[in-house]
Amino acid sequence: MAVSTARRRIIKLRTSSPDGPGGEGAVGVEAVGDELTVEAPLNLIVGGESIATLMRTPGHDLELAAGWLTVESGVRSPGDLQELRQCRTADDLDLRALDGVSGRGVDQVHVALDAGVRRPRPRAWVTGAACGVCSADVLDLSPLRRSAPHTAGWTVPAGVLQGLPDQVRLQQRTFSRTGSLHAAALATAAGQVLVVREDVGRHNAVDKVVGWALLAGRLPATDLLLVVSGRVSFEIVQKAVAAGVAGMVAVSAPSDLAVDLAREHELVLAGMVRPGRMNVYAGSELVTGLELADKPD
Amino acid sequence: MAVSTARRRIIKLRTSSPDGPGGEGAVGVEAVGDELTVEAPLNLIVGGESIATLMRTPGHDLELAAGWLTVESGVRSPGDLQELRQCRTADDLDLRALDGVSGRGVDQVHVALDAGVRRPRPRAWVTGAACGVCSADVLDLSPLRRSAPHTAGWTVPAGVLQGLPDQVRLQQRTFSRTGSLHAAALATAAGQVLVVREDVGRHNAVDKVVGWALLAGRLPATDLLLVVSGRVSFEIVQKAVAAGVAGMVAVSAPSDLAVDLAREHELVLAGMVRPGRMNVYAGSELVTGLELADKPD
Repeated sequence: MAVSTARRRIIKLRTSSPDGPGGEGAVGVEAVGDELTVEAPLNLIVGGESIATLMRTPGHDLELAAGWLTVESGVRSPGDLQELRQCRTADDLDLRALDGVSGRGVDQVHVALDAGVRRPRPRAWVTGAACGVCSADVLDLSPLRRSAPHTAGWTVPAGVLQGLPDQVRLQQRTFSRTGSLHAAALATAAGQVLVVREDVGRHNAVDKVVGWALLAGRLPATDLLLVVSGRVSFEIVQKAVAAGVAGMVAVSAPSDLAVDLAREHELVLAGMVRPGRMNVYAGSELVTGLELADKPD
Repeated sequence: MAVSTARRRIIKLRTSSPDGPGGEGAVGVEAVGDELTVEAPLNLIVGGESIATLMRTPGHDLELAAGWLTVESGVRSPGDLQELRQCRTADDLDLRALDGVSGRGVDQVHVALDAGVRRPRPRAWVTGAACGVCSADVLDLSPLRRSAPHTAGWTVPAGVLQGLPDQVRLQQRTFSRTGSLHAAALATAAGQVLVVREDVGRHNAVDKVVGWALLAGRLPATDLLLVVSGRVSFEIVQKAVAAGVAGMVAVSAPSDLAVDLAREHELVLAGMVRPGRMNVYAGSELVTGLELADKPD
């Protein structure tokens, strides 16, 4: 199991309340060891060629690689991966720059794809909120079509959707120590959480659970829900579509484009889950327990 | 001014507290119009060539393009940009796929770089937490060296660092309506906030304020602080280094690699700013009001 926190000496400052007696000011300053989330590069090598560097929190790296390839290439079943193995290069010539920064080696995952599987496509620069959206094929979703429709008759109770973020939080192991990790999970419509993965990057956390499902032979996950700890951008919905999940639950709000994409692919999309309230942005016809109102879809 | 929210009909669900009388269950379900953060592609064209698609919240697009180029190329002063203009393409053949999704046109920013300016370098796939880190030059920071050291004698009071996130929040215009926008700001060591920008992507929000500073002729910003609403990853510190700021303040925690990079470049890095407490991860020798303890750096 990889290390996902690292210790650094930092200064912790406590101050009195500005409204309290004595006004503002430091009441305690101490130099202490603090646990930080680890962020480190993972070099993904497909067919002997370095195709991506993922800045990720170490752990479940094979799942991360498998999930990333599910979203970005034609990988859809465990058999599409002829080889999937991890190694560590401490003295790779091309990676000396990294060692200069951190003194760490660089992890690599080597993948061999089955001959018939579509390779990840080269793409131009992509940055920002949706770093997985390509320039050469701007928002072209053709490789991301849902691989299967929902399991026939699938529905999910509103109460299950509302309870899932809390359940996932209870299973997050590292966040409470470092305060800086995103989580993703897969769960059933009965509210059973099957897998939780954490990462400094929300995209990576989603890729890790998608990779878990791929390696477990559970894709397309037409009867499962993807749970994410943060906001829902267009690209996160793209990943859900690639995995073929039935729906998504997010702690925070989606963008307009994320909602539009979820509706187009008939995904359930719930968000802004807070004590006592929740929004359903898409797929409300698949959510039970909403009988008090007309539905917008 | 671009539109940064969009309305969609959604279902809002209110439930009673599970601990309260009557137990769990829906007490209110209504279909209402809800304001969502807009997410849309911006195509960046440099010297006639499409080099990147940024998924961003529309608004301050010229600043976004200028800031992105500051981080990713040799642009360091307004004169490095011979041309910087925005246009909208509704019927671009290559972008039809997008129109199929959203019915929107695609915004473009056209840039002409001065002949002597280093171009953005092509890079392999990059995804995850730090989508700006390239594969071809793994964590090679040579183009991102601080363009200048701190302004001589520059220091910042701990109380200013601690107050900045709240000040920025007060100036965030869209977040309170949509609940899903990141913010970045530039501020002085006296606590004056000079500029606040919002975006669905935290990288974009930082690029927008860096672009603002570039176009205002204020780079390198050796006497300013970069304030960010979220976590601090390696790539966010890279952007701070490229802009030459004196320090950073974040609401949440940094990764270990982010701390290491901030220390290497002698940036102040404060985070986990909460009522009554704050952590200083790097550059504590430049922070006044920490006299109660030995300093770790």
